[in-house]
Amino acid sequence: MTSAVARARTPSTAALREIQSLIKDRLEDVVVEMRRVVSAELPLIEQVSGHLLQMRGKMFRPTLALLASETAEQPESRVVTLAAVLELMHLASLVHDDSVDHSAMRRGLPTVNSLFSHQVSVIMGDFLYSRALEALVALGDLDLMRVLTSVSTQLTIGEMHQLAAVDALAFTEQDYEMLIRAKTASLLSAACETGAMCGASAHREALRLYGERLGMAFQVADDILDYTETASVTGKPSGLDLKEHKVTLPLIIALPRLASADRRTVETLFATDLPSDDQIAEVVSLVAASGGIEHAHRRGEEFAREAEDALDGLSDTPARAALADAIVYVMDRRS
Amino acid sequence: MTSAVARARTPSTAALREIQSLIKDRLEDVVVEMRRVVSAELPLIEQVSGHLLQMRGKMFRPTLALLASETAEQPESRVVTLAAVLELMHLASLVHDDSVDHSAMRRGLPTVNSLFSHQVSVIMGDFLYSRALEALVALGDLDLMRVLTSVSTQLTIGEMHQLAAVDALAFTEQDYEMLIRAKTASLLSAACETGAMCGASAHREALRLYGERLGMAFQVADDILDYTETASVTGKPSGLDLKEHKVTLPLIIALPRLASADRRTVETLFATDLPSDDQIAEVVSLVAASGGIEHAHRRGEEFAREAEDALDGLSDTPARAALADAIVYVMDRRS
Repeated sequence: MTSAVARARTPSTAALREIQSLIKDRLEDVVVEMRRVVSAELPLIEQVSGHLLQMRGKMFRPTLALLASETAEQPESRVVTLAAVLELMHLASLVHDDSVDHSAMRRGLPTVNSLFSHQVSVIMGDFLYSRALEALVALGDLDLMRVLTSVSTQLTIGEMHQLAAVDALAFTEQDYEMLIRAKTASLLSAACETGAMCGASAHREALRLYGERLGMAFQVADDILDYTETASVTGKPSGLDLKEHKVTLPLIIALPRLASADRRTVETLFATDLPSDDQIAEVVSLVAASGGIEHAHRRGEEFAREAEDALDGLSDTPARAALADAIVYVMDRRS
Repeated sequence: MTSAVARARTPSTAALREIQSLIKDRLEDVVVEMRRVVSAELPLIEQVSGHLLQMRGKMFRPTLALLASETAEQPESRVVTLAAVLELMHLASLVHDDSVDHSAMRRGLPTVNSLFSHQVSVIMGDFLYSRALEALVALGDLDLMRVLTSVSTQLTIGEMHQLAAVDALAFTEQDYEMLIRAKTASLLSAACETGAMCGASAHREALRLYGERLGMAFQVADDILDYTETASVTGKPSGLDLKEHKVTLPLIIALPRLASADRRTVETLFATDLPSDDQIAEVVSLVAASGGIEHAHRRGEEFAREAEDALDGLSDTPARAALADAIVYVMDRRS
């Protein structure tokens, strides 16, 4: 087995643009399809949709669905609509998450709640989701609907778990995995599974599993970045999760390893409404010194290996190679 | 044709309990089904769901669906799940509306946003909707899905129209009808249409039309109530819509009939952030004196007659009689 993870250090193989080169034209069709699905006569809807399509980012979920559909002989053209539905579901959940978190920026652009209003973001999230469903229903495939409505429920249950957390520091590694499976891995997994259902159904289960493990690795990598990235202005760790009192894997691993004085430093940060940059930098150092980041990275690599293993049964197609490269991309991401 | 509208003045025929007596057992099954559909392992979800099921109100949409399914020979048992889905979709949209409007009370109980939080109401609305869809998908009927996902879009477009309104007083009767069709009539219509699809498909189009006209009459009656009800404490008109600067049919009709000084009184109210009870009482008087309430009532009666006419082709069953009584109930409602 060629190790995608071993190739991880070659930056060129991890470039998203290369991963997408195989399905470049179809990806452009997906953007056109997204525009069609959300078009409406109301100027306010057009404005918000326009803003969101600008914000759409890397189209990672459509990329996965398109690649999955190409892992066998006959990719079906309906995968374009499916991919648009996946990205719109993702956007809808981001719009509601930003509204719930009162986030001001996303992907370098103002969020819907900050640019328009909280009201607009609640209803626009509903609109996007509902239009995506209509487009999905039009595909006439109950199996696709089954997978995707179940994912929606998982996304909301994940969010509710976050809202229900009363004692953040009591969060276990098991809780964390349950949460990132619901919040992140479920949709990446569904993107791969439903993509496979559009022309490569023999690989449906393998690609579902691949997507789930990829999603776990993706979220772990994201959570590590929050500890290792430095904000360009302050030069200190950005530590956004800590600022918002979110407990992720590096801290979960570090906590039981900390001396009681150091644990109190963490507790103080979590008891402070607006922790200072210095407080955050100190906790980041404690987590790093205890091996929390390193251990989290190893856990991420395990998920990445499981994702790679899931591809074992697939024949050697360019799409399979691109999916293997997507693992590298996820692990190497710097933003 | 027996006139349900003519019978409107006999209070006993308008009692919801009597309309529901035919389908009483099934309505209890619907509540059980709703509980099943929203059950979850997370205590916070159980708490919010429990609160919402208490708040569920009159189950008017399930009632319509169950009755519609009984207008021919063979009502199908899956109508129970369908009716639960309809009520959950309705609850989900109420939860988001209350969050958007910052409403504190609904049906005599605190709203989810006031009892829990804004965050919980956004995500719980998503959860309810998403679980309702899963239950709908499990019925395995793409036609039902087509009708209900289209309704969801209409509900959100209606809400977006309200959020987009910049000059409330420029709202025309046409705008108003478009809005209440999207916000209210669409779901009542879908309840009747999809109910018919569960055992009385020959009446699908007739019942769709009946439900739409009933829904229009329902909302007009609701909007009139806001002008005619008096708050028990102050003895003055409650005028909640005016307080929130919402323009409904009585005011739309009155505006062009007002002398310019009186119009300025209305404009002043709409330019005041928190209008006083006296301001509201004055505008209510102006609207009443100009015939706005009376004319709106006549418009409501037109919709009611159209709803009645739509039942013409149905054979004389107890369900048909109950649907005719539902028109009376809608027109006679005092709360």
